[in-house]
Amino acid sequence: MSEPAQRAIAECRQIAQMSEEPGRITRRFLTPPVHEVHNFLRSRMESLGMSVHTDAAGNLRGLWQPPGAHAKRLVLGSHIDTVPGAGAYDGILGVALALEWTHLAQELKLPLPIEVIAFSEEEGVRFGVPFLGSRAVAGRFDPALLALKDADGITLEQAIRAFGLDPGKIGDAALDADVLGFVEIHIEQGPILEFEGLSIAAVTAIVGQTRLTAEFHGHANHSGTTPMRLRRDALAGAAEWVSAVEAIALETQGLIATVGKIDVEPNAANVIAGVARLSLDVRHAEDAARKAAVESLVAQAQSIAEKRALTLEITRQMDQPAVPMDERLTACLADAIAAAGLPEKLMTSGAGHDAMVMAARAPTTMLFLRSPGGISHHPEESVLEQDVEAALNVGRRFLQRLATEVG
Amino acid sequence: MSEPAQRAIAECRQIAQMSEEPGRITRRFLTPPVHEVHNFLRSRMESLGMSVHTDAAGNLRGLWQPPGAHAKRLVLGSHIDTVPGAGAYDGILGVALALEWTHLAQELKLPLPIEVIAFSEEEGVRFGVPFLGSRAVAGRFDPALLALKDADGITLEQAIRAFGLDPGKIGDAALDADVLGFVEIHIEQGPILEFEGLSIAAVTAIVGQTRLTAEFHGHANHSGTTPMRLRRDALAGAAEWVSAVEAIALETQGLIATVGKIDVEPNAANVIAGVARLSLDVRHAEDAARKAAVESLVAQAQSIAEKRALTLEITRQMDQPAVPMDERLTACLADAIAAAGLPEKLMTSGAGHDAMVMAARAPTTMLFLRSPGGISHHPEESVLEQDVEAALNVGRRFLQRLATEVG
Repeated sequence: MSEPAQRAIAECRQIAQMSEEPGRITRRFLTPPVHEVHNFLRSRMESLGMSVHTDAAGNLRGLWQPPGAHAKRLVLGSHIDTVPGAGAYDGILGVALALEWTHLAQELKLPLPIEVIAFSEEEGVRFGVPFLGSRAVAGRFDPALLALKDADGITLEQAIRAFGLDPGKIGDAALDADVLGFVEIHIEQGPILEFEGLSIAAVTAIVGQTRLTAEFHGHANHSGTTPMRLRRDALAGAAEWVSAVEAIALETQGLIATVGKIDVEPNAANVIAGVARLSLDVRHAEDAARKAAVESLVAQAQSIAEKRALTLEITRQMDQPAVPMDERLTACLADAIAAAGLPEKLMTSGAGHDAMVMAARAPTTMLFLRSPGGISHHPEESVLEQDVEAALNVGRRFLQRLATEVG
Repeated sequence: MSEPAQRAIAECRQIAQMSEEPGRITRRFLTPPVHEVHNFLRSRMESLGMSVHTDAAGNLRGLWQPPGAHAKRLVLGSHIDTVPGAGAYDGILGVALALEWTHLAQELKLPLPIEVIAFSEEEGVRFGVPFLGSRAVAGRFDPALLALKDADGITLEQAIRAFGLDPGKIGDAALDADVLGFVEIHIEQGPILEFEGLSIAAVTAIVGQTRLTAEFHGHANHSGTTPMRLRRDALAGAAEWVSAVEAIALETQGLIATVGKIDVEPNAANVIAGVARLSLDVRHAEDAARKAAVESLVAQAQSIAEKRALTLEITRQMDQPAVPMDERLTACLADAIAAAGLPEKLMTSGAGHDAMVMAARAPTTMLFLRSPGGISHHPEESVLEQDVEAALNVGRRFLQRLATEVG
């Protein structure tokens, strides 16, 4: 393994020690271990000759300005917060590799300014709202968010001040116009690359997502004394719908649809279910396909309810459009993958990332690394050395191409 | 409405006031309001010329011995305990109507001794085990039960002593051999008679019941990043099985099968279910039909699991054979229904009753009264006056037939 690949992995493992909890990785937005991470990354950035500052949203930002270069800068980065009980690579690997890419650009003496951002918040764990860091960088931070409270009643505004920052200056965190584009390197957090035996992929879009709750109401009755034909069984109706959700996703290209949550009342072995409440999560890279699937599933729920004399309530909770990645930047990344001798894999991201927010401000794309076992948000989350190596090989070619284009 | 019908309903409503909780009906085994019920019923029995005693299991028992009669006695009765938040008729209506039937026998001067038993315990609420009263009467009370504890840590033995009874004498509660048979009058607690527009029915059997838990294990994964074809979704498998349970019951005559309980892990909208745990409750009047259905459903669960790369654990919790009612006594009851000018309806009981236990000791049958709305174990539980009237008309003819047979 090359020295840069070893270093990137070692840094992730070292930063994993900086946790709110002994023995497991939990690092929420602006909690004390974030100071440790900042100190660690600041030293590292400074050793690369970058000028470093922390913006008012808690994002640590390092700028490499090559001597004499006048081109717009490439922005690289990912997040440094984690879910509770996290793995060592989600987010942080993207920061470590961004620094290695910077190092590569320096070795190659490319006239390409690079800003690396360690985004302060992506997971939405502490304040219930995700992307707090990238919202600020994208100039999309709504000051009303400052009133959000964490579980201890501390407001976002107070948390920012307690970290030594000025919430009044969050507006200054927004990227200026001198930006070429934004690239986020991230583990896939899914099983596709492993299944296909691939190291890395360029991301073409972050899928859109609909979340809703479907609540079937029937009649709770004695399971022994109520004959089948006189039942209004909410769980039997719900089960029929769960199968319909799976079926539409299996037959629609690129569609993902999940019922992950079901709550039944009274939920007793000898009582027919009176109420069944289900979550629906539908994702697709094309908004029209997602919307059509959702409408079809709502109609199927209605017809199931009607047939079974149940009533149905649909509560829509989220309708988030797909975010296409920048075509030119993604093509450049895909070319770099091919130039590195790897299969030119393109895929969509089924999860949200800072790149989703950044895409509103700058041409954006993502590079995914294989997640062994598809495992993420779990201590067993890992990366393969060969895939980190691949990300470096791709980075070298990507940066060269970009420098040529802007040069 | 006749005076006896009015009286039976009024007695149920009056006894409903004797509760552990103000404003709702809760009367568990041997709690203080049971003394009130005993006092009330003892007076009533004594006013009918019955000799009354409370056996060591807390059953209140009144014997009507017609002057000069030497025939074996008919035993009538039902339970006086309730579930929490009960209705006014479950159990107690069977005691009130048993007393009215006794009154009818007296008016008709039938040479038929009658014992009325107000069973102390049927619901299994206080000690978690049902039929404590009828077990004693049927000579099937296992002394090991005395060690059972209620929620306050009071043993069954202590509860019996605290009520002023001697647990050492439970053996004496068993019926002697001078018994013609046992008849329990009870509300249906289901919707069948109402659906068919009928007042009453004779019961041919209490269905057998299998209870088991099926646990599907898959793999919990991110709902956005895991494509459909790489999922091992425990809830999708569970849903397919819930539909199979319903289907087999709809296509098998007399079969009732219910999944009333489902618990999913981690039960989150954005995580594919890793575990789904379901209850199965299967009932049929014929044990072979029930067993065949259960085996078929277990096999279907296995094939669903196999197809989906899930693992399956089946935990069998209960296998209770059907209890056929006595053919001769049931035919006599059905004849009496026809003689009263009513449709001769026969049906099975989907729920357990004291009659299930008593059938092991004496020829036993049951008479069901329509449950408006199928509602029971609920404050809205009710009976129709016309159905109480019908039960009295049937009782008159049943007692006459029985007296003729034994006379």
